[in-house]
Amino acid sequence: MDASADDRYNLITRGLGEVLGGPIIKAILDEGRSPKCYWGAAPTGRRDHAAHVGYFVPLTKIADFLRAGVEVHIHAFLDNLKAPLELVKYRTKYYQKILLAVFQSLGIPTERLIFVEGSSYQLTPEYNLDNYRLCASVSEHDAKKAGAEVVKQVESPLLSGLLYPGLQALDEQYLGVDFQFGGVDQRKIFTFAELYLPRLGYAKRAHLMNRMVPGLTGGKMSSSDPNSKIDFLDPPEVVKKKIRGAFCEEGNTTENGVLAFVMTVLMPISELRIERLKGESGAGAANDSHNQRPFVGEGAPTGTIFTVDRPEKFGGPCHYANAKEIEDAFAAKELHPGDLKKAVTDALISLLDPIRQAFLEDQEWQRILEQAYPEGIKPTKKKKVRFACYLVSNPIDELFVSKGEDVPSPSAG
Amino acid sequence: MDASADDRYNLITRGLGEVLGGPIIKAILDEGRSPKCYWGAAPTGRRDHAAHVGYFVPLTKIADFLRAGVEVHIHAFLDNLKAPLELVKYRTKYYQKILLAVFQSLGIPTERLIFVEGSSYQLTPEYNLDNYRLCASVSEHDAKKAGAEVVKQVESPLLSGLLYPGLQALDEQYLGVDFQFGGVDQRKIFTFAELYLPRLGYAKRAHLMNRMVPGLTGGKMSSSDPNSKIDFLDPPEVVKKKIRGAFCEEGNTTENGVLAFVMTVLMPISELRIERLKGESGAGAANDSHNQRPFVGEGAPTGTIFTVDRPEKFGGPCHYANAKEIEDAFAAKELHPGDLKKAVTDALISLLDPIRQAFLEDQEWQRILEQAYPEGIKPTKKKKVRFACYLVSNPIDELFVSKGEDVPSPSAG
Repeated sequence: MDASADDRYNLITRGLGEVLGGPIIKAILDEGRSPKCYWGAAPTGRRDHAAHVGYFVPLTKIADFLRAGVEVHIHAFLDNLKAPLELVKYRTKYYQKILLAVFQSLGIPTERLIFVEGSSYQLTPEYNLDNYRLCASVSEHDAKKAGAEVVKQVESPLLSGLLYPGLQALDEQYLGVDFQFGGVDQRKIFTFAELYLPRLGYAKRAHLMNRMVPGLTGGKMSSSDPNSKIDFLDPPEVVKKKIRGAFCEEGNTTENGVLAFVMTVLMPISELRIERLKGESGAGAANDSHNQRPFVGEGAPTGTIFTVDRPEKFGGPCHYANAKEIEDAFAAKELHPGDLKKAVTDALISLLDPIRQAFLEDQEWQRILEQAYPEGIKPTKKKKVRFACYLVSNPIDELFVSKGEDVPSPSAG
Repeated sequence: MDASADDRYNLITRGLGEVLGGPIIKAILDEGRSPKCYWGAAPTGRRDHAAHVGYFVPLTKIADFLRAGVEVHIHAFLDNLKAPLELVKYRTKYYQKILLAVFQSLGIPTERLIFVEGSSYQLTPEYNLDNYRLCASVSEHDAKKAGAEVVKQVESPLLSGLLYPGLQALDEQYLGVDFQFGGVDQRKIFTFAELYLPRLGYAKRAHLMNRMVPGLTGGKMSSSDPNSKIDFLDPPEVVKKKIRGAFCEEGNTTENGVLAFVMTVLMPISELRIERLKGESGAGAANDSHNQRPFVGEGAPTGTIFTVDRPEKFGGPCHYANAKEIEDAFAAKELHPGDLKKAVTDALISLLDPIRQAFLEDQEWQRILEQAYPEGIKPTKKKKVRFACYLVSNPIDELFVSKGEDVPSPSAG
């Protein structure tokens, strides 16, 4: 890492919606050390979009962290602790496969990426004692407020939803990280952690937050609509069809998942590739076996990071040097939804191609998909209690099975 | 144990306010086995009545269990998990000393009495995983309802109060008991356990409940009044003074802790001693070094279990054969509060004498009192969150201390 502390700090914090505790990160960089980051992913219970391209948004930011030398700990949250633990284990393995393939397809070095299994610390006496200590000082009111935006608000909320903010706070301590990354919807969870960890005698961590962006295929994605999300493994024709059906109104830049996808995913990836072509440090090595070209058309002016191809009769290709330019053009109706969709479809298909190829070449991964999302098993009805995933090693799985849990055979389906 | 299953069942269930799941106990006895019981005690944080004579009420009932061959597991609850764990450890040791001395003074065999340290199971992965599984199925509403009578209802309740019913339910499973014993104020906690343990795949347990009785020295005891409770170690003059100040209105049998103490503690103990004198099985051996005489005056008619001595000029001694007789006599104002108080004072002093002697002869116990309730440490302000006590072995104590907890030196004060 020969980038300066300032360069690294700028790379870590660029494009974020909010940074709390920036000086914590700055101080570590100034000492020439590398901060550690924690990102909690929340796998779905649905096979039809087990891992959807919305993950490109945080992953594009995590690519910045990795490039800046940050050690990134990824820990899976589960929608619902009620999911049989066998499934939880396979789903986490599945996410691991997907995320690694994504980073590899982006040419991002992954040796500083660490996938954490919950069981490695979440069932230890120390962690649980700290959970009880927290529970003896956190009021219901504070816990509810902290989870207000993240834990689904239902008429009869479960206790797990109240424990969640505390457990997520403890994760920071037990993973030994310096900052936690999430969407700005995590803000209350993050400030809860900043308040309560020091009360247990632990250090306050920094919190870096992405802006919330609309889902690619709709203003407000409905997880119950199978067309609402594009899976990382969707083939080109499915991608085309889903983007064709996406909400993308002329001139409307606020509820526009397609435009947001360009601004938050495709443009940063394109920039990364341009930097790599220039041989810039930390940009990773080009992966020769995959298409690593920037999303920039031939003959584009210097500085272009995204090109929308358009037939000459409609004005020819449009070139954009940054997110604001394309947003302004779309707002001014200079860029038509149809042309934008075409550009996004092409770019996304090229992004997904190496991931899909990696899947098709990896029999273990294919087996894990079947184990994680057996065809015969209906997706759990959208119970949105986010909950830390308690991945457990065999002895406890057996304990569970012996208690008569409805654990589908891994070979089912 | 040569008593019949019916005799044993009657001894176990006699005098209780309510029995849920009696057939569970009956079936075990019919097989010639001995049921296991769990009783959760809730030590106070106050030195001035660290263990008060109100405990005679459940202990008198537990004496029945022990006589019937039941294996009794006693597990300490702590008022507040915030109490430094060092103190928790010493307080539990202190209660152990007191309870053993009480049973010994009553001549009850204690080899089937088991003091459980929380750490032996409450910090294991299995227990905590079950706690999380429970939290993912118990609603806030159900948890709150379950604890309504036991967890202090405050404006901003702590999460620990919501966890408490679930943890107490899990205790039944992890202690491997057949029934749990408590006051009728525990009823909702008990029915919560009956509902939720089977949902985790565990057996439903029986629940035996004592009636609630007013405290000895007042209709409603206030724990903030140092005179409100008589400690097991109070010397005779303090006992006299506290009973003199007790609320005991002529003719009032409902708010009358002094009368209740006779009916629920002194009469059963007196009966036990009578049975023992008759050589009845299971009544335990007389302890020669202590006064084991029934509370029955000389020349009392056969069947008397409690005598109130009274000067001849006021009508001479009154003899009662059961609780109803003394209650009726008091209601009819045939028994004067002053005479009743005198009889209770004498009986209690004789009951406490061997306990106090045991304390004075036991230097280890004296040291434990200093460690459990250091003179210099103020009692925690009546935070009444009942919470299972997490007694932990040294490694975790050290963990705590190293986190800067306010752990007073054991030699403080």
